Amino acid sequence: LKTPIQKFLINTFLVHLAIGATTASANEGMWTPQQLPHIEKDLKNAGLEIDPASLSQLTEFPMGAIVSLGGCTASFVSPQGLVITNHHCAYGSIQYNSTPEKDLIKNGFLAKSLDQELQAVPGSRVLVTVEVKNVSDQIIDSKTAAFSGKKRIAAMEVNEKRLISECEKDVGHRCNVHSFYGGLEFHLIKQLEILDVRLVHAPADGVGKFGGDTDNWMWPRHTGDYSFYRAYVGKDGKPAKFSVDNVPYAPKHYLRLATEGLKENDFVMVTGYPGRTNRHRLPSEVNFSFGTNYPAFIKASGEVIDIINRETNNRKDAEIKYASTLAGVNNYFKNRQGMLDSYRGGDLLERKQKSFSELKTWVNADKTRKQEYGAGVTATEKLIAERDAIIQHEFLLSYATPRFLSSARVLYRLANEKTKPDIKRESGYQERDASRIEQGQDAIDKRYDEQVDKALAIHFLKQYVAQPKKYQNAAFLSALGLKSNADEATIKIQLNKLYAGSKLGDKATRLAWLKRDLADFKASDDSFIKAAIALYFDDQRRENRDKELSGNIQRAYAQYMKALIAFKSSKGEAVYPDANSTLRVTFGTVSGRTPAGQDGMGWAPFTTLNGIAAKNTGEGEFDAPAAQLEAIKNKSFDKYYDPKLTSVPVNFLATLDITGGNSGSPVLNKRAEFTGIAFDGTLDSVISDWDFNNATTRTIAVDLRYILWQMKVVDKADNLLTELGVR
Amino acid sequence: LKTPIQKFLINTFLVHLAIGATTASANEGMWTPQQLPHIEKDLKNAGLEIDPASLSQLTEFPMGAIVSLGGCTASFVSPQGLVITNHHCAYGSIQYNSTPEKDLIKNGFLAKSLDQELQAVPGSRVLVTVEVKNVSDQIIDSKTAAFSGKKRIAAMEVNEKRLISECEKDVGHRCNVHSFYGGLEFHLIKQLEILDVRLVHAPADGVGKFGGDTDNWMWPRHTGDYSFYRAYVGKDGKPAKFSVDNVPYAPKHYLRLATEGLKENDFVMVTGYPGRTNRHRLPSEVNFSFGTNYPAFIKASGEVIDIINRETNNRKDAEIKYASTLAGVNNYFKNRQGMLDSYRGGDLLERKQKSFSELKTWVNADKTRKQEYGAGVTATEKLIAERDAIIQHEFLLSYATPRFLSSARVLYRLANEKTKPDIKRESGYQERDASRIEQGQDAIDKRYDEQVDKALAIHFLKQYVAQPKKYQNAAFLSALGLKSNADEATIKIQLNKLYAGSKLGDKATRLAWLKRDLADFKASDDSFIKAAIALYFDDQRRENRDKELSGNIQRAYAQYMKALIAFKSSKGEAVYPDANSTLRVTFGTVSGRTPAGQDGMGWAPFTTLNGIAAKNTGEGEFDAPAAQLEAIKNKSFDKYYDPKLTSVPVNFLATLDITGGNSGSPVLNKRAEFTGIAFDGTLDSVISDWDFNNATTRTIAVDLRYILWQMKVVDKADNLLTELGVR
Repeated sequence: LKTPIQKFLINTFLVHLAIGATTASANEGMWTPQQLPHIEKDLKNAGLEIDPASLSQLTEFPMGAIVSLGGCTASFVSPQGLVITNHHCAYGSIQYNSTPEKDLIKNGFLAKSLDQELQAVPGSRVLVTVEVKNVSDQIIDSKTAAFSGKKRIAAMEVNEKRLISECEKDVGHRCNVHSFYGGLEFHLIKQLEILDVRLVHAPADGVGKFGGDTDNWMWPRHTGDYSFYRAYVGKDGKPAKFSVDNVPYAPKHYLRLATEGLKENDFVMVTGYPGRTNRHRLPSEVNFSFGTNYPAFIKASGEVIDIINRETNNRKDAEIKYASTLAGVNNYFKNRQGMLDSYRGGDLLERKQKSFSELKTWVNADKTRKQEYGAGVTATEKLIAERDAIIQHEFLLSYATPRFLSSARVLYRLANEKTKPDIKRESGYQERDASRIEQGQDAIDKRYDEQVDKALAIHFLKQYVAQPKKYQNAAFLSALGLKSNADEATIKIQLNKLYAGSKLGDKATRLAWLKRDLADFKASDDSFIKAAIALYFDDQRRENRDKELSGNIQRAYAQYMKALIAFKSSKGEAVYPDANSTLRVTFGTVSGRTPAGQDGMGWAPFTTLNGIAAKNTGEGEFDAPAAQLEAIKNKSFDKYYDPKLTSVPVNFLATLDITGGNSGSPVLNKRAEFTGIAFDGTLDSVISDWDFNNATTRTIAVDLRYILWQMKVVDKADNLLTELGVR
Repeated sequence: LKTPIQKFLINTFLVHLAIGATTASANEGMWTPQQLPHIEKDLKNAGLEIDPASLSQLTEFPMGAIVSLGGCTASFVSPQGLVITNHHCAYGSIQYNSTPEKDLIKNGFLAKSLDQELQAVPGSRVLVTVEVKNVSDQIIDSKTAAFSGKKRIAAMEVNEKRLISECEKDVGHRCNVHSFYGGLEFHLIKQLEILDVRLVHAPADGVGKFGGDTDNWMWPRHTGDYSFYRAYVGKDGKPAKFSVDNVPYAPKHYLRLATEGLKENDFVMVTGYPGRTNRHRLPSEVNFSFGTNYPAFIKASGEVIDIINRETNNRKDAEIKYASTLAGVNNYFKNRQGMLDSYRGGDLLERKQKSFSELKTWVNADKTRKQEYGAGVTATEKLIAERDAIIQHEFLLSYATPRFLSSARVLYRLANEKTKPDIKRESGYQERDASRIEQGQDAIDKRYDEQVDKALAIHFLKQYVAQPKKYQNAAFLSALGLKSNADEATIKIQLNKLYAGSKLGDKATRLAWLKRDLADFKASDDSFIKAAIALYFDDQRRENRDKELSGNIQRAYAQYMKALIAFKSSKGEAVYPDANSTLRVTFGTVSGRTPAGQDGMGWAPFTTLNGIAAKNTGEGEFDAPAAQLEAIKNKSFDKYYDPKLTSVPVNFLATLDITGGNSGSPVLNKRAEFTGIAFDGTLDSVISDWDFNNATTRTIAVDLRYILWQMKVVDKADNLLTELGVR
């Protein structure tokens, strides 16, 4: 599973520093729409039958049908705004609508008519990319280019906010500036933002999450990882907040379902929003991630999982509340462990060091080059080391922070920012962010349990105070009423006091703080509000420190990146930007892999219903619905039988270059018809985020035939099948 | 494993009725040397780099290096007559030289010099095919063509014996007439017959038979199924019986070892002596084999296995004696079960019935055709039904016959035949057969244990007398002193009496009977000799009945076959003859298979040393030698490491059309260099003997690199490696 949000975010820096380069290899490449004209011939040769040029037209078919859910990808599949994405991408909404009495996670959900559709989890969006513009010269204009540090970041932010504000004058749209090539280029991306999203259909967990964490990132796979949303707009056809008066959105384009099943070696293509890749990082960044950060992350995640399981044991309500969080943590826990295993069995660092050393040799071999890039490359190494030291020392902070202290900080920061004119406010605290902040605070209750949250905070606070004092944040401890040598009993007593002293757990109380001013905050005796105020000065200090560093890194890293592009270019190699949550296209073929699995074995390109019956244990992660097992047993294959596979295909493998954020992406055939939905990669190749290997990297997708078979034969979703045009 | 000899032979008929047809499909086809000019282009296109025409030159390279062991294939691999074949083909010789004190089966064997080489099991031969001649018009001359029944067979035998006798005037050669296209064509095949064969090297059973019956016919596979013989001749270079004065044979041609390892999709070719395929049998033959004969065979074989295991338990000497027999029975037991499983899961009979019905429609649609083939086709169906009824009713006879009663019958028949001039004697009892008969009788002791043999006879006699009386052979029971309603106690008493009353268990006594005349036999009071004499009249009756039927079948089946060839030809399809233990060539590619194994998995083309370590349990069938495991653990890969596989390859899969008799065949690369040795097929495709399926049929071979690695790193067979030209 590639999931959208990593709850405990590692990298809090403004500018995502990501660089990348194409290789001559077959299926590597997350192409930007602008780059597509350059690979038209490759697409044609690979078997694409539609005009490749159409792929660079964002508002035409098929790109107009591909949408972002903010962290996941999805696509329109009917003229009534029906959207298909992964079950794990809709999991938050399924969980949000579940109660112990009406357990949609376990039983699945099917709206038989529009009025039965359920509001998605607050904050849900359907975003349709309508324009991409290179604004590098406007973000780093001549004035900004002369600045460094915090001043540089501030100037960039002013430019960014102005561009965004102008862009968002087109009501119903959301605009963002994304950094490409590690801050060398900036693109302004404009998206239609549909605010009213509803849950239409999800299969039972025993289908949508069949195999659970055991099968996650694994092959052979048998997961029906699909669900349906519907986009709603106001009666005027414009995006509007949820209202019973809203009507289904009529997308300009939607995908048609393929009528022919995929076969081995067929051309396939994925369009979607990959989150992040790190294919050309510095050796020191590789070393820090794999030597320090990932091991720390794996350790902490394992503890989070244990604590959530322990504290929700026999508490069905708490279990449902934490199901989504747990799935996310488990997912990244396994992912990072897989990366680390590959890293330890390989020679990535050696290769990085070798190529970085070659780059430096090349730079220094020529006077002009040395003058142009030399300082930038040297500075980058030094600044990255500073940044990584900060990340390492502050690693446990977010784990040790009670959920409502985080809320209090957001609320107090908002009150502070609201004293400024909107355009001067910090990004994330402007008027355009108001509803996102509100929804964030609104949604907490359905995913929060005090017992769990407190146990997590106590556990990590203990670790935090066990660190050398010089790495501890005195302001943070002081705000919690703790000393640097606090023992477990004291931590517990103090946290009990803090949790008891706050009313932020009450939704109405919490949301009311969104409207209050600074005087209200200062007069409050809410324990977490008081702690947030106490922390404010230090939070500002850390933010300024980070901005100073970020400004310098951006300037240096852009130089390094320029040098790298020039170096590669001198060797005839093109460079494409690493993934950065913007719309990309990747293409490849349906293809198994050998060797794989045990000695002498390989992976077939398809799994089938036979494997579901074989894996089913009737409990836990392998608990297929009885109706499904009965249909398999009776060979009720309908028209979805594949004679070569002697059953209905379930999941398939393809040589596609995807990563987290691509979850929910449609897999299109040579005619750009919908043939399945990408949802995962394989554990021994997840290191492809850093180090792509054509021989091993595979995307795992749900076959359309399985989705339709399950909907028709098992879930009797005839209303949706009709809407999808299935006869 | 494909083993040479099926101990309990099902079909005792003189003329092997086997028909076949090529399809347009890629890797189906066991081509005769004469047919090779027709597929020259296919061979070139597939990647063969040597001149394909050279393959039809039996006395040139490489065909001159390919030899038959009579049931297995082998090849010369050094100028000193060194021969490589399968471990399971040399198993009889390894077992023959083993004792509880010097267990060559368990420990393996390596002759460090010529004088340490051991005599192979009596009857061992190295046969080099030197000429193939179509003699159809001489076997069925105009006079013979007019005959039917026994008279026809007799006339054919006269012609056959004359041709053989003329051919064998070339001393040191053995000639045989083989039937092609189910008795439509006959070829005289002349082979140099090397009589002195010695065991040179065999790996330990934990290598040569690693995986045992569990892995037999299975993939992934890790069996080092190779052994070495050496051919010896008299000092004059001519074949001679074993003598210490004999010298290694200098073959005109021998295979060179490939210096480059095989990769997936590489061209490969197998030359060898496939035993029998049944690709175009009548529907009634398919129905009889799968509906009656194979199920009966599987039941009886299972009982034989149980009895041998029970009676040899804790008797190491008896266990060694029956090791080879047990391996053979186990092998066919699993093979036939695999065929039956495929048959029951498929529609072979329906397809057979459909195509046979099409053939009949085509024959009857035209007057000339109806006149030419009509009667033959009708008669074939009727005669085959008669034959199958006899086979069914006599099925248990051979199982119920004590080993030395069989000996006594052979000895008494020989004394009878010897009263005639040699050319008039029954085939198999001529002077040319004398040494084969003697060796057969000589070798019994090393594979015989009275307790086991008696237990088998008693078990199957009980079943025999439980049949309806009309299916019992009164003469047989009477000769054993039994009535048709004998109970178990009576059978035991009577068999104890028979076994006690015979001296044939004494080798010298037994061999002395080879020289005795009819009067000596009639005067004997040896219990089995007396029984054989008592049975003689009925044995003759049955033989005459079978010959009458065979003559009629031959005539009718040839007509049916002619009709089939004409029918196929009318549709543009060529027909090649089914396998009949004559030299054939098949070509294909190194190739895994998907799907295969569990759902979503497939077979990789290679296994590696990693799999040996993973499978090893240290006991029973998975007991790799300690030195081998140590070498694997230490990654002592020498130069046999494959970077893609990250280890040394062990076995590989290829799309080659082979069957029993191909065991030991060299796998040649595009330059006709030795790259490995074929030893098995896969259980779910053994039905290819009847019904070839390109998608599923795979040959399993030992990779040369594994053989050399094991010989060098583990077994320190430096003397042989030097002889093989390995530096």
